[in-house]
Amino acid sequence: MPSIKLTLQVLCGDAIAMGPGKAELLDRIRHTGSIAGAARDMGMSYRRAWQLVDVMNRCWCGRLVETVPGRSSGGACLTQLGETVLARYRALQASLDDCAATNGWHDLTTLIREKPLLHQPEANAARPVGER
Amino acid sequence: MPSIKLTLQVLCGDAIAMGPGKAELLDRIRHTGSIAGAARDMGMSYRRAWQLVDVMNRCWCGRLVETVPGRSSGGACLTQLGETVLARYRALQASLDDCAATNGWHDLTTLIREKPLLHQPEANAARPVGER
Repeated sequence: MPSIKLTLQVLCGDAIAMGPGKAELLDRIRHTGSIAGAARDMGMSYRRAWQLVDVMNRCWCGRLVETVPGRSSGGACLTQLGETVLARYRALQASLDDCAATNGWHDLTTLIREKPLLHQPEANAARPVGER
Repeated sequence: MPSIKLTLQVLCGDAIAMGPGKAELLDRIRHTGSIAGAARDMGMSYRRAWQLVDVMNRCWCGRLVETVPGRSSGGACLTQLGETVLARYRALQASLDDCAATNGWHDLTTLIREKPLLHQPEANAARPVGER
């Protein structure tokens, strides 16, 4: 089935303050209660997950993730700001999905195939005519 | 300045039928009159540009790009369908940008910094607590 993929990124200078991967990381930190657990769930290294958290914590007006002081097990939770930013990001994503469904997405789907053709059936289809 | 980046992709099965790169390629094919010229403009190989054209030509209900028969110089132009798909893709992108501006984008910008902090100022900011 034809479908649309909308990737929403919030940029702070050159840094990506929020995007699909960071939003999922926040969800999993909330669920697992630690950056390490979230990293495991997402199949990424702890250091990589921490780097993503560090970027978020430096892009927003306050930290989105707080580690639990005095614990060495990497316990972490979302701050109130973290919960707010995540909720607003999800809400914006949802409103954009709605917009896509009601603003011309149908105009495109009527023109697309269910699946790509496996090869060019026509003789003068675009094809390489030698390297350049 | 905080900003938003919306990446719109149209999927046909597992293939990306249209996205920012393919839309730009179509624009440049129209402008240069050839796949080779468009590839040069975008700093990609002719073969890579042709592969992108081939995917588009197999995903939509007809070819978006047609090579000029009998020419060995890679002359190409957009079909009427190509013009239509590109216009509708651009229109959907524009309507999504409008939606973002009027649906909660402001709620996020009020919470983001102009630029990321260079480092964590607080003592208990999230930080690595040993490898896992």
